[in-house]
Amino acid sequence: MAPRWKGKAAEAKALSEPISAIVSRLQSSLIESDSHGLLSGCSVLLAAQPEQIELFNQACFGRPIITAEKDKQWFQLSLEEALYLCSVMKCIKVTGENKCVKNDDELWSYMTSKKVDFPYLFKAYCHLRVKNWVVRAGSQYGVDFVAYRHHPALVHSEYAVLVLSDEDECRNVRLKAWSDFHCTLRLCGSVAKTLLVLHITKKRDDGALASSCLEYYGVEERIVSRWNPEQSRENQTMVEKELC
Amino acid sequence: MAPRWKGKAAEAKALSEPISAIVSRLQSSLIESDSHGLLSGCSVLLAAQPEQIELFNQACFGRPIITAEKDKQWFQLSLEEALYLCSVMKCIKVTGENKCVKNDDELWSYMTSKKVDFPYLFKAYCHLRVKNWVVRAGSQYGVDFVAYRHHPALVHSEYAVLVLSDEDECRNVRLKAWSDFHCTLRLCGSVAKTLLVLHITKKRDDGALASSCLEYYGVEERIVSRWNPEQSRENQTMVEKELC
Repeated sequence: MAPRWKGKAAEAKALSEPISAIVSRLQSSLIESDSHGLLSGCSVLLAAQPEQIELFNQACFGRPIITAEKDKQWFQLSLEEALYLCSVMKCIKVTGENKCVKNDDELWSYMTSKKVDFPYLFKAYCHLRVKNWVVRAGSQYGVDFVAYRHHPALVHSEYAVLVLSDEDECRNVRLKAWSDFHCTLRLCGSVAKTLLVLHITKKRDDGALASSCLEYYGVEERIVSRWNPEQSRENQTMVEKELC
Repeated sequence: MAPRWKGKAAEAKALSEPISAIVSRLQSSLIESDSHGLLSGCSVLLAAQPEQIELFNQACFGRPIITAEKDKQWFQLSLEEALYLCSVMKCIKVTGENKCVKNDDELWSYMTSKKVDFPYLFKAYCHLRVKNWVVRAGSQYGVDFVAYRHHPALVHSEYAVLVLSDEDECRNVRLKAWSDFHCTLRLCGSVAKTLLVLHITKKRDDGALASSCLEYYGVEERIVSRWNPEQSRENQTMVEKELC
């Protein structure tokens, strides 16, 4: 399925400003300002400096939240976004309630205690983000994430992403029944998205903590789509015609 | 959600010819002609006499199949439809390959051997059919059945029906994850259907065979819908206004 740009101008704008460049600028700016996020339940709050507000919005990290403070714009980052900025991009630090900076091991422990399937979701999130996909929550489509080629203002999301793992009880109940497959594919079709199943496997389990153990998880990408016998017949006819 | 009739004339036609009356006429006609269906894999084939063809179509049992025979119209009934006509409506008999009529016990054994979760699906099918809902397969919406107030030519289906049971491995993998709930509800919403979950419970398990043991299964009906806080607030305001 081709990307569905929101107009010609949107496509041109996206091509002139790749996400990778925007994320790089955000990364530099956050390192320069020595940004610290604050753990708060299942999210991390981070105060953006004026020049960072636009970069956060353009790179699609977190969502702006309204506070009484007039001179600061706070962003609420999901646990996946925060750990990605902290341990992969290495451009923010995260503190706990005691205002001490938490190291990667401590963050990993905290986040897995909040969300038992965090390692799988985080691995999937990183897998897509490092390829410069914009990754947002997918709950409105009944999936874990949706992936955009560029900013959601410029393009519709292309992939509805389900994260599965055989090892985790929370993650292995999806797509076990045909009716669930039918439901998911029908919904993906009706909103013009491709179903991308990221199957997370544990390559090694030596109790290693820290997000450095990300490398011990593998990712298998599977695109799931309906097989259209009519289309296949036509394709065959096309091939035959080309051969003639 | 109100029934979505396919035009004013459709509604008037449906009201003038209730499904219960059409099914009764089909029942009488099939009894009169001493109709026999033939087990064939996961379906039952039945030859309809000329006056029955229209009744089968109107009552929405089976689907007509094309054969080389010019004087007979064959209908392919699902296992649920066949057993319903045979053991609940008592208007057809079903024979096996040896052309011997199978009794209810034998049919029940055959059908559960073909579909391990047949008892649950059949209980759900009967539950809706005896209330004069037209019940068709729901696979295109990722559910077990869809239920129509009248013939699908006159009205859109109102319910997407999922049949669940805690006792059966095949049936208890749906709606276990929030993402599945979200997916199913979003899809139901987009096709203007209400999600009806029929939870089948076993009241007694004494190894009884035969569809007479249908009475040992209970049905809990659950409508699942999104809670819309905005709507609730408005309703509250309306109530307050009425009280003023």
